[in-house]
Amino acid sequence: MARNEETGIMELVENMLCGAEQSLSRLITLVEMDAPDVPQIMKTILPRTGRAYSIGITGPPGSGKSTLVDRLTAIARCKGLSVGIIAVDPTSPFSGGAVLGDRIRMQQHYLDEGVFIRSMATRGCLGGLPRAARAVIKLLDAFGKDLIIVETVGVGQTELDIMKMVDTTVVVLFPGGGDAIQTMKAGLMEIANIFVVNKADRPGADQLVMELEAMLSLNPKNSYWQVPVLATQAVNNVGIEELYREIERHRSVLESTGQLSQQRQTQRRAELIQAIEQEVSERLSSLMEKDENLIALCEQVEKGERDPYSAARDILSNRAMLRGWFARMESEGKGENKKK
Amino acid sequence: MARNEETGIMELVENMLCGAEQSLSRLITLVEMDAPDVPQIMKTILPRTGRAYSIGITGPPGSGKSTLVDRLTAIARCKGLSVGIIAVDPTSPFSGGAVLGDRIRMQQHYLDEGVFIRSMATRGCLGGLPRAARAVIKLLDAFGKDLIIVETVGVGQTELDIMKMVDTTVVVLFPGGGDAIQTMKAGLMEIANIFVVNKADRPGADQLVMELEAMLSLNPKNSYWQVPVLATQAVNNVGIEELYREIERHRSVLESTGQLSQQRQTQRRAELIQAIEQEVSERLSSLMEKDENLIALCEQVEKGERDPYSAARDILSNRAMLRGWFARMESEGKGENKKK
Repeated sequence: MARNEETGIMELVENMLCGAEQSLSRLITLVEMDAPDVPQIMKTILPRTGRAYSIGITGPPGSGKSTLVDRLTAIARCKGLSVGIIAVDPTSPFSGGAVLGDRIRMQQHYLDEGVFIRSMATRGCLGGLPRAARAVIKLLDAFGKDLIIVETVGVGQTELDIMKMVDTTVVVLFPGGGDAIQTMKAGLMEIANIFVVNKADRPGADQLVMELEAMLSLNPKNSYWQVPVLATQAVNNVGIEELYREIERHRSVLESTGQLSQQRQTQRRAELIQAIEQEVSERLSSLMEKDENLIALCEQVEKGERDPYSAARDILSNRAMLRGWFARMESEGKGENKKK
Repeated sequence: MARNEETGIMELVENMLCGAEQSLSRLITLVEMDAPDVPQIMKTILPRTGRAYSIGITGPPGSGKSTLVDRLTAIARCKGLSVGIIAVDPTSPFSGGAVLGDRIRMQQHYLDEGVFIRSMATRGCLGGLPRAARAVIKLLDAFGKDLIIVETVGVGQTELDIMKMVDTTVVVLFPGGGDAIQTMKAGLMEIANIFVVNKADRPGADQLVMELEAMLSLNPKNSYWQVPVLATQAVNNVGIEELYREIERHRSVLESTGQLSQQRQTQRRAELIQAIEQEVSERLSSLMEKDENLIALCEQVEKGERDPYSAARDILSNRAMLRGWFARMESEGKGENKKK
C-alpha cells in the first residue's frame, strides 16, 4: 500500500518534470498540505532546480502589485521566457482560501501555456506559508519556468520572510498609501533591491520618490548595488520596461559579483534549520495530544494555574519525560505515512 | 554567581510589582533578549496577571493608528484607568530598533505617570516578536496597568498572530489606503471585533464604511457579537468616544457570555505549545553549531548537493544522532545560564 503510494508520487514528479501542468498542481497541493512525501519530492527534484530566477513583489495593499506582475509577465513572455507566478494571500474566511479578485486582471495569461499562476493562502498551508512558498518556488523551478514571480498581499513579518527567498525584491508603494517613513517602519527599506512608486499619475508621487531617494541616501549602501527608485503606472503600462530592465541589471550584478550564489547558500542554510525545527515541532505537537502528563499540565496552564514558559522549561528539564518523548518520537518518525 | 544573578532578577520582579517603572523596563528588555530567566520571571508574576484588559489596534501603514491610540489613552486616563502601550514596529536599519516618529505625537502621555509606552522591534526580539509581545503584555498586566493597548505597524501574518493575544481587536482602515476587498485579503476580516474607518473626512470614507458593512453582512456572524464599523477622525478627535464605548461594550459581552475566559484559555494553550517548540528549537540550533555530522551536512545543503527537507528528515530518523542530540540537549538545558 505504502509502496504503491510512493510509486504514485514518483510518477507525479516524473510527469511534472516532463511538463505536465496537472501534476505540478497536484504536487503544489501536497506541499501546501505538508504531506509526508514532501521531503522525498524535494530530494527528487533537487538536480533540476537552481536554474530559474526569482523576483519578489511586495508592498501595502492597494499599491497595484497584481497589475505590475501582469505587465512584467507580458514583457517576459515577449522575450520568450516562461513564467511562474505565486500569489501569497493570507486566508480570508469568505473565500475559504485565496481571493481571486485581483487574479481576474491576470486572465490574459490564464490562456497562455507559458504562464503558470497559483495562489497560496495561510490557511491551506499546514507547515507555514513561507515554508510552503519556498517549496513551490522549487517546484516551479524544476518544472522549467525561467522566471518565478512571488507576489505578497500584506506587508508584515511573514511577507518579509518570504522575500528573503527570492533573488530580487521589488517593493511597490503608491502615493497616498503611507509615506516613506511608514515604509521604513514596515521594514521594507531593508529588503528592497528596487523601489517602485506605482500609480505615479496621482498627486504626491514625485514627493514619495524624493523621500525614498533621500532615505536611501542615508542608508549605508552596500558596495555592489545602489537601490533605484522608479515611477510607474502599471495600469497605463508606463515605466514597466524600465522596471524590467532594472531587474535584469540587478540580476547581472548579482551574478557577476558572486552575490547570487552567496545569497542562495544563505537561503539553503536557513531552510535546513527551519526544516529540522519544523519536523521536531510536528512530532512534539502530536505527542502533546497523547502524553497524559502533558495533557494534565496543559490543563493547568489553560486555567492559568501555571505559566506556559516555566512549564515548557520544566518539561524539557525532565529527564524521564524527555526520554519517553524521544522514544515515541522515533516511532512517530518511522510511521511516516500515518503522520498528521 | 548564578545564585546572585537569580537574586537580582527576583529583586527586579519585586520592585516592578511594587510599581518601579525602571524595573519594568529592565524586565521588558530581558524578555526581548529572551534571557534564560524569562520562565522564572513569568512564573513569579503569574498570580498577579489576568486582571488587565487588552486591546489590539492594527491596520495598514498610514491609517492613523498611533493618533487613535493617543486619543483612546486620553479617554482611559480621564476615567482613571492606567494604561500600558506596546508599539510593535518591524525593525528598520536606520533606527537600529523601533522608530520614534509617530511616538512623538504621544508625547503628552510621556509625562503622565499613569501611562507606560514601549516600542518593540523584530530585530531586538530573539525569541520572535509575538512571543516577546505576549510576555510584555503580562508584565504590564502584573505591573498593574488596567488597560493594555498593543499597536502594530504592518499588516501581515506576524501582526495577525499578535492580535490573537488580545481581548478586543480594532482594525483601522482609511479611505485611499486600499478598499474592503484588500482588507479581506489581508486577513483582517477574520480578526476584527471592531472596524474603524479613520480619516473619515477624506473622500471615499462613506463608501469604505458601506463596503465593510456589506462584507460583514456576508460573514457568518457569531451569535454573541456583531462587528460594528465606526467612522473616526482621530486628528480632530471625532468619533473616539464612540469607539471607546464600543470597546467597552465588546468587553462586557465577552465577559457576560463567558467568551473572555474561553478566549484566554485558548491563548494559554497556544502559548504552552509555542514555548515548548521554541525551547526545543533553541537547543537544536545551538547543537547545530557543535555537531560535526551536522556541520558537514549543512555544507552539503548550502552547496545545493542535498535538499534541506530530506536532510532534515534523515537527521531525525537517525537513531544514534537523535540519542546524542537528546543527551546534549539535556545537558544544555541544565546549564541554563550559559544558554545563548
